[in-house]
Amino acid sequence: MTNSIQQAATLLEALPYLQKFYGKTIVIKYGGNAMINSDLKRSVIQDIILMKYVGIRPVLVHGGGPEITAMLKKLGKQSTFISGLRVTDEETVAIAEMVLVGKINAEIVSLLNTAGAKAVGLSGKDANLLVAKKHLAKVHEAGEIREVDIGFVGDIAHVNTGIIDTLLENDYVPVISPIGSDENGQSYNINADYVAGELAAAIGAEKLLLLTDVEGIYRDYYDKGSFISTLALDDAREMITAGSIDGGMIPKVEACVRALAGGTAKTHIIDGRQPHSLLLEIFTDRGTGTEVVR
Amino acid sequence: MTNSIQQAATLLEALPYLQKFYGKTIVIKYGGNAMINSDLKRSVIQDIILMKYVGIRPVLVHGGGPEITAMLKKLGKQSTFISGLRVTDEETVAIAEMVLVGKINAEIVSLLNTAGAKAVGLSGKDANLLVAKKHLAKVHEAGEIREVDIGFVGDIAHVNTGIIDTLLENDYVPVISPIGSDENGQSYNINADYVAGELAAAIGAEKLLLLTDVEGIYRDYYDKGSFISTLALDDAREMITAGSIDGGMIPKVEACVRALAGGTAKTHIIDGRQPHSLLLEIFTDRGTGTEVVR
Amino acid sequence: MTNSIQQAATLLEALPYLQKFYGKTIVIKYGGNAMINSDLKRSVIQDIILMKYVGIRPVLVHGGGPEITAMLKKLGKQSTFISGLRVTDEETVAIAEMVLVGKINAEIVSLLNTAGAKAVGLSGKDANLLVAKKHLAKVHEAGEIREVDIGFVGDIAHVNTGIIDTLLENDYVPVISPIGSDENGQSYNINADYVAGELAAAIGAEKLLLLTDVEGIYRDYYDKGSFISTLALDDAREMITAGSIDGGMIPKVEACVRALAGGTAKTHIIDGRQPHSLLLEIFTDRGTGTEVVR
Amino acid sequence: MTNSIQQAATLLEALPYLQKFYGKTIVIKYGGNAMINSDLKRSVIQDIILMKYVGIRPVLVHGGGPEITAMLKKLGKQSTFISGLRVTDEETVAIAEMVLVGKINAEIVSLLNTAGAKAVGLSGKDANLLVAKKHLAKVHEAGEIREVDIGFVGDIAHVNTGIIDTLLENDYVPVISPIGSDENGQSYNINADYVAGELAAAIGAEKLLLLTDVEGIYRDYYDKGSFISTLALDDAREMITAGSIDGGMIPKVEACVRALAGGTAKTHIIDGRQPHSLLLEIFTDRGTGTEVVR
Amino acid sequence: MTNSIQQAATLLEALPYLQKFYGKTIVIKYGGNAMINSDLKRSVIQDIILMKYVGIRPVLVHGGGPEITAMLKKLGKQSTFISGLRVTDEETVAIAEMVLVGKINAEIVSLLNTAGAKAVGLSGKDANLLVAKKHLAKVHEAGEIREVDIGFVGDIAHVNTGIIDTLLENDYVPVISPIGSDENGQSYNINADYVAGELAAAIGAEKLLLLTDVEGIYRDYYDKGSFISTLALDDAREMITAGSIDGGMIPKVEACVRALAGGTAKTHIIDGRQPHSLLLEIFTDRGTGTEVVR
Amino acid sequence: MTNSIQQAATLLEALPYLQKFYGKTIVIKYGGNAMINSDLKRSVIQDIILMKYVGIRPVLVHGGGPEITAMLKKLGKQSTFISGLRVTDEETVAIAEMVLVGKINAEIVSLLNTAGAKAVGLSGKDANLLVAKKHLAKVHEAGEIREVDIGFVGDIAHVNTGIIDTLLENDYVPVISPIGSDENGQSYNINADYVAGELAAAIGAEKLLLLTDVEGIYRDYYDKGSFISTLALDDAREMITAGSIDGGMIPKVEACVRALAGGTAKTHIIDGRQPHSLLLEIFTDRGTGTEVVR
Repeated sequence: MTNSIQQAATLLEALPYLQKFYGKTIVIKYGGNAMINSDLKRSVIQDIILMKYVGIRPVLVHGGGPEITAMLKKLGKQSTFISGLRVTDEETVAIAEMVLVGKINAEIVSLLNTAGAKAVGLSGKDANLLVAKKHLAKVHEAGEIREVDIGFVGDIAHVNTGIIDTLLENDYVPVISPIGSDENGQSYNINADYVAGELAAAIGAEKLLLLTDVEGIYRDYYDKGSFISTLALDDAREMITAGSIDGGMIPKVEACVRALAGGTAKTHIIDGRQPHSLLLEIFTDRGTGTEVVR
Repeated sequence: MTNSIQQAATLLEALPYLQKFYGKTIVIKYGGNAMINSDLKRSVIQDIILMKYVGIRPVLVHGGGPEITAMLKKLGKQSTFISGLRVTDEETVAIAEMVLVGKINAEIVSLLNTAGAKAVGLSGKDANLLVAKKHLAKVHEAGEIREVDIGFVGDIAHVNTGIIDTLLENDYVPVISPIGSDENGQSYNINADYVAGELAAAIGAEKLLLLTDVEGIYRDYYDKGSFISTLALDDAREMITAGSIDGGMIPKVEACVRALAGGTAKTHIIDGRQPHSLLLEIFTDRGTGTEVVR
Repeated sequence: MTNSIQQAATLLEALPYLQKFYGKTIVIKYGGNAMINSDLKRSVIQDIILMKYVGIRPVLVHGGGPEITAMLKKLGKQSTFISGLRVTDEETVAIAEMVLVGKINAEIVSLLNTAGAKAVGLSGKDANLLVAKKHLAKVHEAGEIREVDIGFVGDIAHVNTGIIDTLLENDYVPVISPIGSDENGQSYNINADYVAGELAAAIGAEKLLLLTDVEGIYRDYYDKGSFISTLALDDAREMITAGSIDGGMIPKVEACVRALAGGTAKTHIIDGRQPHSLLLEIFTDRGTGTEVVR
Repeated sequence: MTNSIQQAATLLEALPYLQKFYGKTIVIKYGGNAMINSDLKRSVIQDIILMKYVGIRPVLVHGGGPEITAMLKKLGKQSTFISGLRVTDEETVAIAEMVLVGKINAEIVSLLNTAGAKAVGLSGKDANLLVAKKHLAKVHEAGEIREVDIGFVGDIAHVNTGIIDTLLENDYVPVISPIGSDENGQSYNINADYVAGELAAAIGAEKLLLLTDVEGIYRDYYDKGSFISTLALDDAREMITAGSIDGGMIPKVEACVRALAGGTAKTHIIDGRQPHSLLLEIFTDRGTGTEVVR
Repeated sequence: MTNSIQQAATLLEALPYLQKFYGKTIVIKYGGNAMINSDLKRSVIQDIILMKYVGIRPVLVHGGGPEITAMLKKLGKQSTFISGLRVTDEETVAIAEMVLVGKINAEIVSLLNTAGAKAVGLSGKDANLLVAKKHLAKVHEAGEIREVDIGFVGDIAHVNTGIIDTLLENDYVPVISPIGSDENGQSYNINADYVAGELAAAIGAEKLLLLTDVEGIYRDYYDKGSFISTLALDDAREMITAGSIDGGMIPKVEACVRALAGGTAKTHIIDGRQPHSLLLEIFTDRGTGTEVVR
Repeated sequence: MTNSIQQAATLLEALPYLQKFYGKTIVIKYGGNAMINSDLKRSVIQDIILMKYVGIRPVLVHGGGPEITAMLKKLGKQSTFISGLRVTDEETVAIAEMVLVGKINAEIVSLLNTAGAKAVGLSGKDANLLVAKKHLAKVHEAGEIREVDIGFVGDIAHVNTGIIDTLLENDYVPVISPIGSDENGQSYNINADYVAGELAAAIGAEKLLLLTDVEGIYRDYYDKGSFISTLALDDAREMITAGSIDGGMIPKVEACVRALAGGTAKTHIIDGRQPHSLLLEIFTDRGTGTEVVR
């Protein structure tokens, strides 16, 4: 009996969120451990299926660094890095695209479809979804910042949302690989966090959820007591400028800033190592991770 | 942490039901204690709001015997009963209609709207929803069954579902009083269980839920061990014929039989004294009460 | 033969009005003798059916003072009055609602449906149609005006036209009881003339017709020669301020003023004691009663 | 006052017909005196405008024999006749088309538009509305019937209703000249009564009204007492076979037979010399002329 | 083989034009030799059919001066001319209308339909397409310009595009006679070039094509070397003012100016004596004739 | 001038085909030389763009054997073959999928989009487009045919056309990789010819075009004089049974048979080595290659 009271309580706690998010679009950046550990993987898939069935429109953007690295190694392709970014020649970007689109994306689509969704994989090339331009790496040298060409690493020049709109209106779940192309059809590898942020802004998403492998953002990374539950947009910008955000978190915080500036209501950096962290974030009163808000 | 695992489990347990009932219509007969006790009342309202927000289309039919009796008493109107049915003259049916439509229905509509739904009250007269014909009471006399005219107690001759369809398509929650009228506009008081059963059949409801003040159906009412969780349609018909169903439950079981015959997939007689019994019946694996199925 | 020439002439006289009002909404305040005398009642119902079949969208608002008074008396409930308004406690408003919604409204709906319309009864609570706030009576005391709380007598705070739009688009005739509720679901009894005026403004009605038991407005009530056929909006406002309008007509004139201010093109105060006065007002060149226009 | 009672009575008498014909299509064959006398002309135009504004969809087919004859004479073109049909060579059919389409049709369209309709003239060539084939005249010779080629007089091989549907759905009044063409584009002059009958059948008209210059059909033309108000389809066929119908009425009765066979509910032969005969036929209880029914 | 390479090249050359004009409306003024010579006639019809099948929406406006003159002569009607315009009395305009609508228009419609289009003939009277007003002739007299009433020669006061929109949306090809009428239904004969120009402006045509019997416009008509391929809008206006445009070309250039001012992107004066000049103008890189552009 | 006559002739020759295929779906199997030679590649892309702009709905299915073989070799993966089919273990099918979806498909999409289409790449996994089941190789052994499991080589069990319909209705060009999956999400490599045939049948394509590297089908492969322009469905079936079709052509002929049986009107095996062979096949009178028809 106790159990049924708790069950009813949980369902009722979810009620205002069901109401709030009905028919709304949520962009999810799927990456890290949640993409490797098979239990976590199943938990993410279940969470997305549940969102779908309560009328939410989830859009997934996935990463895939480790698998790209593994394939480059298998094919005997050496990589060099500048400022943490892989120097990406024609062959490297082709391999990255092949792994992201032909392997990782295909697997996520398959898991979602087997679980009952109607998922459709997209690369940024499909219907010109992600128009890319060259990203220049910033190199700190002798007290100066110099921009260096590192090949086919891209920034987003423009998002053509038509195909996403068509798929969402027809009840499909779009799964997007972070590959874009310029007007000549040249492929670019783009940071998946940035893709998620730009997409959220472009399609007018209600929420952006970024799965990571940490609890969230700390004001001081070494002081567990300095955990930040809610970070205002201006604070976030300031922390980026001040350099007080841990390197790995910078793209995530920047993605949040971009989405918020573009009209997304709330953005969340969530610990993907916790099972059903998406579900709990959306449907329960307890927030998890760090939310960045206007 | 434990709690969040349970919460996620509950939400995930609800998943297949969310999927199954999305866009489906569920007819709920609301009556008994759940209409009197204010905690239970709030729990029913919450349950219906939740259904609405996960894409279910609830349709309520309410009863109101005790309040009609109270008003008749206040107005000094005496009632006689034949075979358990109130002899209903012109004045009595007018008072019944006034109480059902102008008081009980109005209150339910108000509770739902205050809680965030868009409820609209209907009597069976609105848009000719419930076309009625005279119901004759069956009197057992000297080993024979004789039919007796007891006034304006009605059976349903026809259901015009147009207004229900219009309201459901426009996202309203219809709340229906069990009053019908014949082609001359004469009002009839109709048993609310029958109204719910006929409506479920006519609008092609997926489910019929009847709230009662007992646990469900027992094969032998005095043997608590004879509780029936699932009752097949044929068994139900047999038990009615055999007279082995407790008098008060007969209209409910007959309503189930009618709905099932008309195409409703499942019907349930539920203990309305348990808080959130609607929610638990619909969204959890544990069944409550007795289900009557084909 | 003569007759057929007259018939053709009447039909042709109606032509420009048929053209003008096709697809337009007309709000009708139904009250007074026309609601009591059974011949007049039938004539009003026929007129509304005819409007419907020539493509007009009629919306009815009904009153019901005498029947409320009768029921209060039957139930032994004493009333006191302040400035002509009934002091309305919780019990009184509940009885008023019961009579208006459960008796008068139901009867009008039934008459319309029997005559071939698809009428649907609404109270202002349905789909939050009429959001009410407390109306304070104005008491003239020692040369000053003091506002007095007389209970659950309401003014209209807001009209949610959604349910009216849905019903009109689906070819139903809405019949509305002058009961509203506030955000807590508390019922208020509202003057039906005001409801008609506010509704006409809110739904963008083409015309407002108010049935009364007099010929119309006189500049000097005791001088039959001072009858006003057409009254300009500004004149109407002035006459209200100057106190030169007979008490019973004030709410009607104020309803006209409100509707005109909200965009209704023309408003009419019509003698409901004349059979088919609605029909003649709408479809013939002769005006009846007093029209208040911009 | 008396007058207003009569006016109301007329409007109410029209009520069931308004209801019955709302949204229905009525084909009207316009010809004879009603096309020549300017008062009758105005009366027909007014009647059609009224139909339009009460939601009826009128479709006009016009004739024009006298004007064709006049133009042929002006141009010095001699005509010979076989079995009452004009021998129609290439030049004659071209003149007929010119007069029907470029003069008579244009004038009717203009009158309707000036009176407030949106009329569009069509010949049977437009969008291949009337596909024609050669009509052979039947010559009684020495007790035998011989078929004779009299040139470009046509029968209807097929009706393409697309353009009529498009115009009716967009609220236009189609006005049709009785000119058809075969697959090579060759023009044919077709009897306008037949065109009206075939059109009524093809577009599923509710009613066919044929204006003539007589009272209707007599069983014995010389016995005014033998007037037929209602003629059954089978009787009509029999009377045609028996030759007991006056020559000029044969095409009209055959048009009725054709329309009824194609699904039209009722057909009427009406005295077009009586003002507003269309209006009185449709909207009053008194029938005029002869109706041919199934 | 060579041939198939050329065929592929032609189809590919057409590609950008197919893309550019898909779904766009093109107004074509059809007149001159192309309406008389039967080979040219067939070539124009084929070109229009091809436009239709690649998704272009052609609208035809035709002239017909020579045939009107011939008919006037046949009917023994004398004409006088003022400033090159026929003095047009009631009888003359009636004959013009009859010939344009009942003969020329009907023939073009028939040719298009036989070739596979769904053409519908319209006069400017249909659905009030062309509302006309009197055009006054300008007479140069003693160094002054005097305006003279020459009867029912019209200018365009207003274009009601509704019927054109309806026909285009339903895939019909409108063929329009240059006859308009004023609010009293009086017919006017209007210059077909002006009709084409005004129509192009009113319906937002992408292109206006005017068929003539010359190569195009010359800066100096007697110097073949002064041919103008592209004429800017301002130059065109200047040349009209300066009187340096040949008389017959003035209405064509003015029609271009009118269409361009109204939003049409490009206008072309084309040599209709060259077979398939419409096709070559639209679908090949080589321009023919003179284009007038902004 | 000669040239413009030829141009007009080509455009006019294309006319009936434009008419015939407007709005129709054509499935194209893209493979062989036309996928390797860069001139041919550009010619295929141009042809598809042209189809799109004349209102045809092209659907591409691509192969990719040589590139899969190259990648397997690069990754040091050995292949064995049974009856000409590659034994396909888990690793092999993963590599095939990666190359087909992540490389070849992506490149075609990119070429189409750069040329002006809106192409979207799909694998058979997307929205469960291609539901696969295991294909067993047939091994001829000692006069008997034995079925052998060769791993994840698939047949098509079912086609879910929903995503194709959605994309076509929204003007996208679907580009499909021949990868399917079963209900457990297991990937299968499927022969692209079969995919094209099944798809054509499932989506009701008007035409199936299969690009090959030969002229078409010969009755006797060594006798150039035995070339077959048109092959009847029954003959095709017979030739397959009789073993008289060259091995490489069998899947193509079987794909034609499958599409024709499923309702496709015509199927064509076309020499992809000839530039613009698609265009010439569709838009000119000369047929190329072999057509298989009912």
